[in-house]
Amino acid sequence: MLRKYFPILEWGAAYDRDTLTDDLIAAVIVTIMLIPQSLAYALLAGLPAEVGLYASIAPLVIYAVFGTSRALAVGPVAVASLMTAAAAGQLAAQGTPEYYTAAILMAFLSGLMLTAMGFLRLGFLANFLSHPVISGFITASGLIIAASQLRHILGVEAHGHTLVDILATLFAHLGDINLPTLAIGVFATGFLFWSRSRLKPLLNRLGITGKLAGVLTRTGPVFAVAATTLATWALALDESGVAVVGAVPQGLPGLTVPSFDVQLWAQIAVPALLISIVGYVETISVAQTLAAKRRQRVDPDQELVALGASNLGSAVSGGFPVTGGFSRSVVNFDAGARTPAAGAYTAAGIALATMFLTPLLFFLPKATLAATIIVAVLSLIDLPALKRTWDYSRMDFAAMAATILVTLAFGVEMGIIAGVGLSIGLHLYRTSKPHVAVVGQVPGTEHFRNIDRHDVVTLPEVFSVRVDESLYFPNARFLEDLVADAVASEPRIRHVVLMCPAVNHVDASALESLEAINARLRDADVTLHLSEVKGPVMDRLARSHFLDELTGEVYLTQYDALHALAPKLAEETLGAARKLDACRTTRGT
Amino acid sequence: MLRKYFPILEWGAAYDRDTLTDDLIAAVIVTIMLIPQSLAYALLAGLPAEVGLYASIAPLVIYAVFGTSRALAVGPVAVASLMTAAAAGQLAAQGTPEYYTAAILMAFLSGLMLTAMGFLRLGFLANFLSHPVISGFITASGLIIAASQLRHILGVEAHGHTLVDILATLFAHLGDINLPTLAIGVFATGFLFWSRSRLKPLLNRLGITGKLAGVLTRTGPVFAVAATTLATWALALDESGVAVVGAVPQGLPGLTVPSFDVQLWAQIAVPALLISIVGYVETISVAQTLAAKRRQRVDPDQELVALGASNLGSAVSGGFPVTGGFSRSVVNFDAGARTPAAGAYTAAGIALATMFLTPLLFFLPKATLAATIIVAVLSLIDLPALKRTWDYSRMDFAAMAATILVTLAFGVEMGIIAGVGLSIGLHLYRTSKPHVAVVGQVPGTEHFRNIDRHDVVTLPEVFSVRVDESLYFPNARFLEDLVADAVASEPRIRHVVLMCPAVNHVDASALESLEAINARLRDADVTLHLSEVKGPVMDRLARSHFLDELTGEVYLTQYDALHALAPKLAEETLGAARKLDACRTTRGT
Repeated sequence: MLRKYFPILEWGAAYDRDTLTDDLIAAVIVTIMLIPQSLAYALLAGLPAEVGLYASIAPLVIYAVFGTSRALAVGPVAVASLMTAAAAGQLAAQGTPEYYTAAILMAFLSGLMLTAMGFLRLGFLANFLSHPVISGFITASGLIIAASQLRHILGVEAHGHTLVDILATLFAHLGDINLPTLAIGVFATGFLFWSRSRLKPLLNRLGITGKLAGVLTRTGPVFAVAATTLATWALALDESGVAVVGAVPQGLPGLTVPSFDVQLWAQIAVPALLISIVGYVETISVAQTLAAKRRQRVDPDQELVALGASNLGSAVSGGFPVTGGFSRSVVNFDAGARTPAAGAYTAAGIALATMFLTPLLFFLPKATLAATIIVAVLSLIDLPALKRTWDYSRMDFAAMAATILVTLAFGVEMGIIAGVGLSIGLHLYRTSKPHVAVVGQVPGTEHFRNIDRHDVVTLPEVFSVRVDESLYFPNARFLEDLVADAVASEPRIRHVVLMCPAVNHVDASALESLEAINARLRDADVTLHLSEVKGPVMDRLARSHFLDELTGEVYLTQYDALHALAPKLAEETLGAARKLDACRTTRGT
Repeated sequence: MLRKYFPILEWGAAYDRDTLTDDLIAAVIVTIMLIPQSLAYALLAGLPAEVGLYASIAPLVIYAVFGTSRALAVGPVAVASLMTAAAAGQLAAQGTPEYYTAAILMAFLSGLMLTAMGFLRLGFLANFLSHPVISGFITASGLIIAASQLRHILGVEAHGHTLVDILATLFAHLGDINLPTLAIGVFATGFLFWSRSRLKPLLNRLGITGKLAGVLTRTGPVFAVAATTLATWALALDESGVAVVGAVPQGLPGLTVPSFDVQLWAQIAVPALLISIVGYVETISVAQTLAAKRRQRVDPDQELVALGASNLGSAVSGGFPVTGGFSRSVVNFDAGARTPAAGAYTAAGIALATMFLTPLLFFLPKATLAATIIVAVLSLIDLPALKRTWDYSRMDFAAMAATILVTLAFGVEMGIIAGVGLSIGLHLYRTSKPHVAVVGQVPGTEHFRNIDRHDVVTLPEVFSVRVDESLYFPNARFLEDLVADAVASEPRIRHVVLMCPAVNHVDASALESLEAINARLRDADVTLHLSEVKGPVMDRLARSHFLDELTGEVYLTQYDALHALAPKLAEETLGAARKLDACRTTRGT
């Protein structure tokens, strides 16, 4: 029990010197990568640079205690930072203490929600975010983030939380472009793109190969930061209008008490819930992908607790919402991290940076940070997914496209809500009109197939239909209509057989419909039968009065049903001597 | 095409003298029954008595033109009247012109929505109202209606749209009971209950049997109205505080132009949508039940158009929302109505009453109308349904109980919204944790069954699992977890076979999960196979890259899968000479 909630007890017991070495090496590499990222995502969230560092200390230590993934690296990430900015921006202006308070409260509430969901085993809530919705949402968020960072590259004013607002204000200020800023921004962006694709081949040619080359490639942002900071300092570019990070407080964060303003909690609740679910979905996907590579297990409910505790830790140490990030986790994994302790060592590295390196950040241009954000988020934008989804399913495409458009036009919260609502609605619509097949017997076999697809024999007195869907409220009436139409249009029908091999569930609405169908057919002197009912469905039906009232029988197989009904028909309508084979007629001929 | 939208063209062409006679007889009986009902439901809706009559003229004629049910009788009904009162009561005080305007607009907007839903074939929207929700909603509405009418029986003040409000205000005014009113109310209620259960046996003993006795039993309210009106007039009880209907305008309604106030439309929109859906569900259930008795067809989409047009007709002739009523339709059917023309003749009867009989209604006590409402709605209250639903499904019970409680505590609109939301949520929750079975081979057969229920053989190298649910976003991650856990906990697993005979659909989220599972298993050197994939699912998978990337095969049957994998395993892990039978091991022994 204790080990379930404190996975550190399990891996900690087997911790040895070799593991320590591996974890330490990974931690050094991740620390170097995380410093510019943390600063950049704080900028994206509209917060002071040091807040990004704060969010990369306590959460990592806490995740090391509670997390079940061996390689996950938590910290500030792009999408969560954008969502924080959108939520806090609705309550206060960037740069005000109220704005910072709101960001801290986002982390705190999100932490409470995630922890509660973990204890209550509500992780399934994250499932409501279907893949097309999350994919569309991340693509749209990436576009919004990239657009929002253009102002730092150009050195102009721009604001807003939707693509339309951002681009409109950006174009209005295009005349104010600051050329030194633009030069830094273009250089940093270009260098980062170059280092992504060309640095590794170059290192390979220089004899640096394998994992080391991969890890070095990831440190491109550090070089960009160093080079542009030096240039700004040397050329005093800050005096020419280049926006710099400026004075960053030195030292570890103090203990923060989150706001307990009830009204503020009410305003933050929905954004906090959305950021929790989006953050969790990213976290659990990354964790499972990495765990599978080493056949390790991840406990989805415990991950909720761990991510929740990390966010609570972030909130009480002056940080903002954190998530398990994809790229940093992959770096951590590739660099050889073997336990969550690597995250704790990374936290120590960031803490050291906070204590000693912040003076070096004074001349760091915001344009460089914006460039690292743009290059990072452009990899999130997955437009080919639109094509793939279109090819696979028009409904899923509709959910994805709607999520993208609503997010771009109305912001992140509306985008997610619209996407989730639409994907649930489309699912219900699809199952409300299930695939049904009128079936007949494949001659010479005991198999029954769709009369539209196969050459089968049917009896005009027996209407056999297979429904390829669970029977539940969205399609309950559909079944009533189907049977009513069939019986009304063919006066010879004396028996209806519902073939149920694909019916995984019959809910109370469908039970009521079956009872109505049975009663209506009885009024019309038609008998209702079932066949191939699954065990769990049959168990449940036995708890109702339906089986007592059923005018016909429940047959194990459709063949049994026809075999039993045909002789009766023979007696009743075709004379006693005729047998099943003799009374087969082919529908449609 | 014309006949589809004007069913009158079809049955009208075959109309003859016999049909006319039958329809006329039914119309006379329904007219007599409908007059007190119409007055009572207008009272329930908080509207002047004549509005009930107006709502029983134009809508009936219009339904006769557009309706596909031969026996449905539209007009004011209890639940729709309560919903009208709740919606209009939020906008204006009863008795004000604004209140009446809101009620007319409810009918108009509901008519527009229903007609549009009919043309757009959106009838499936009504399916979202699951049976437990509609049943719970009607029970709760019945309780609220009965409680709200108690004030007329007692002659005291009471108001509110929730059970709590109504009972609280009622108790506060209990000291004001008017004894003559109470006497009339108790007499009328008692007589109506008596006539429901005892009148028919009495008539039978008097030699009146069969349908005539049944129809006469239904006219109890007319006797109650006549007796109490006469008594009130003769004893001048109105001067002793008995509330009477009073002066009712004589003559046919004029043409009403509904309000085009945009703000009012916005406020009425949600209640109008809810009343549309609730009314449609009742209408289509009644229509299908009656149609089935004569093997007739009802077109659900055309019924939307017909009900919508009826409501538009009600709105422009000063009426309020109408619905196909259960009890009056049964009376119409039992009285021998053969075509919708019976409804038109009923309308003519009500129109005559409006022109000539309204002066007789002056001394009609409101207590009598309240008694007819109470007796009518108590039959709607179906508490045994709670027990039945509990026995059948705890989840459906939860949706029903929540609908009842929220309706009683927060009113009809919140009740429906909560019920629909909860039933959708519970459905998603249920399918998010589908029934899965790890399967093994039944010895000596080609069948594969749950290893927990049957004595089957399995191979430690092959993990075969059957998911009894469509794969879609709420359970996509569940499948990932399931496979990841299995593979992590049994290092010998080399092959995973997903058995899919119950998978009716694979959406884009589940496809993504299958791709992730495939990739993760590949990283762990495990091969993924599918078996028994349905045709439509296979067609769709073929439109993605999944089948190209799949590390294993898609087998027609689970037996084929094992047959193909076992020799490989034999070669790889057990030596080339061993065969399938030899390498069978029984799991759990």
